[in-house]
Amino acid sequence: MAAAPPPLKDELDIVIPTIRNLDFLEMWRPFFQPYHLIIVQDGDPTKTIKVPDGFDYELYNRNDINKILGPKASCISFKDSACRCFGYMVSKKKYIFTIDDDCFVAKDPSGKQINALEQHIKNLLSPSTPLFFNTLYDPFRDGSDFVRGYPFSLREGVPTAVSHGLWLNIPDYDAPTQLVKPRERNTKYVDAVISIPKGTLFPMCGMNLAFDRDLIGPAMYFGLMGDGQPIGRYDDMWAGWCTKVICDHLGLGVKTGLPYIWHSKASNPFVNLRKEYKGIFWQEEIIPFFQAVTLSKDATTVQKCYLELSKQVEDKLGKVDPYFVKLADAMETWIQAWDALNPPNSNSISKSKSK
Amino acid sequence: MAAAPPPLKDELDIVIPTIRNLDFLEMWRPFFQPYHLIIVQDGDPTKTIKVPDGFDYELYNRNDINKILGPKASCISFKDSACRCFGYMVSKKKYIFTIDDDCFVAKDPSGKQINALEQHIKNLLSPSTPLFFNTLYDPFRDGSDFVRGYPFSLREGVPTAVSHGLWLNIPDYDAPTQLVKPRERNTKYVDAVISIPKGTLFPMCGMNLAFDRDLIGPAMYFGLMGDGQPIGRYDDMWAGWCTKVICDHLGLGVKTGLPYIWHSKASNPFVNLRKEYKGIFWQEEIIPFFQAVTLSKDATTVQKCYLELSKQVEDKLGKVDPYFVKLADAMETWIQAWDALNPPNSNSISKSKSK
Repeated sequence: MAAAPPPLKDELDIVIPTIRNLDFLEMWRPFFQPYHLIIVQDGDPTKTIKVPDGFDYELYNRNDINKILGPKASCISFKDSACRCFGYMVSKKKYIFTIDDDCFVAKDPSGKQINALEQHIKNLLSPSTPLFFNTLYDPFRDGSDFVRGYPFSLREGVPTAVSHGLWLNIPDYDAPTQLVKPRERNTKYVDAVISIPKGTLFPMCGMNLAFDRDLIGPAMYFGLMGDGQPIGRYDDMWAGWCTKVICDHLGLGVKTGLPYIWHSKASNPFVNLRKEYKGIFWQEEIIPFFQAVTLSKDATTVQKCYLELSKQVEDKLGKVDPYFVKLADAMETWIQAWDALNPPNSNSISKSKSK
Repeated sequence: MAAAPPPLKDELDIVIPTIRNLDFLEMWRPFFQPYHLIIVQDGDPTKTIKVPDGFDYELYNRNDINKILGPKASCISFKDSACRCFGYMVSKKKYIFTIDDDCFVAKDPSGKQINALEQHIKNLLSPSTPLFFNTLYDPFRDGSDFVRGYPFSLREGVPTAVSHGLWLNIPDYDAPTQLVKPRERNTKYVDAVISIPKGTLFPMCGMNLAFDRDLIGPAMYFGLMGDGQPIGRYDDMWAGWCTKVICDHLGLGVKTGLPYIWHSKASNPFVNLRKEYKGIFWQEEIIPFFQAVTLSKDATTVQKCYLELSKQVEDKLGKVDPYFVKLADAMETWIQAWDALNPPNSNSISKSKSK
């Protein structure tokens, strides 16, 4: 009997922001090799990234980004892993899985290696239930269902746009928490997938994340971080807040929980504090802003939602700091660049791009 | 060294709606014996409930309820486990744990017996975080914390009013799901406690439930079910929906997840279908009603919230069926009875009632 083909082989790209660690792809080889990789080099374009033999990949450095986007390249961060979102834009696949190069294969409590990609695909291919909480978690997993009292009219669920995976070993803490708890490790394997309820925001981490590009791609912009910017480590958070309010508006779902990866290395808390410093203050105004955002009835596509959101960012958060005026402008540029690379009616399942 | 005293020994009552199963208390003896039990007999008052030696308990049958409440006894269900809420009313303790007599001690994945009561107490004594989702679940559990991107101003959390525990073995399914999946068992031990986000409703099951009587007691009314009523098996659901909207209004938290109990026996799906039948339809109007409910600024106590809610039930759900007019009336009676048994300023921590 032939082995089962890898799920969604021709419909999913793996986006990786730089690979500093040669072991990374070797460890993931059994799981990633069937898929196409998009590597977006975050730093000096003269440095060469070594990719082991046998992987199908395309690699973009800053020069490539500038060449492809021209002046619109200003919306893509430099010297920061936020540049990964360029990979979302150039992909032509329906699904994206993005992962950091310090994330390795984790084991489940039985000692079995976890195929993170497979679980993300399960999450994305089954509906979400953001309109009512199911106490036995994802009702679409094997051995689970909707519990007594769950309204029958809501059991169809909504399409899942985002699958947010977690991390064993080094938890994704901010700099203050890293400083206070340098030895804390996440050892708890929580065997659950949860739909984040409608109207509820969450901190979306980009370390181990999958999404449906056709459903939500244009909202997955990782903002302006790194070189020349006053802030870092809020790229995925920004994308998560924008994504969640747009999912809520469009009737799409966001799941969090399984799969786990093994996060091997804590980043330097002192460096992180410098990057996060302003964000810690700004966030206190950003969250109420996103909690109160409403989008108009005319916002029927992700692009339209995102452009409405960018205007509100400029109006409401521009007062907090001029950075947000620049960010709002970059959000518009991002959509222009997205649409230029993804002209209407090009939404493509299985339309694989060869390099 | 002396053993640690049982937590909250003088501040918690265990409320049990009838005990048909003699093994029940024997199995729970190591965990329950230090606590005071309130048993509310749901059926024929001439039948005697046998309680094994060594337990400190008070027992109420229908005659007792009628004697204590007089005409107000009409708000307490007869021949239905919904009668348990009478126990909440006569307790003078700060905390209540309620459990069904077909629920036994479960084991965690390491094979250790789970002290459900202890976990409920942990849940109730630590804050909830309903205003923003934490992807590593309850940040107040050992080995966990708030993740990067969680706003610092929200990390104090809010007081926890309700701890909703789960069930291994027989899941709490409605009759249609029981009929369709007669062999499904819940074998998944999910090692998590979650705050149910503000604005999100959930199906609260009364099988394994704890709450802070001082914070939310008067909202824990289990409605009119059983003998003479057109509906059953929605008692805990009703209490859950009312409780959740009032918690959201008053800034209180509801947690779900651990602890598990072992649910030994599936109830008869045909009997259940008869009880649930109308509820399955009504629920489709009840949920939108609760999702839209708003309470006024004057509703500053649970009682005031509950009376406002009862008026809205009469106005909005009375059109669905005359049952809801009767229920709204019983909700008012319940509050009158609660206040009669719990006069103002009688909120009592450690004011144990002796029999």
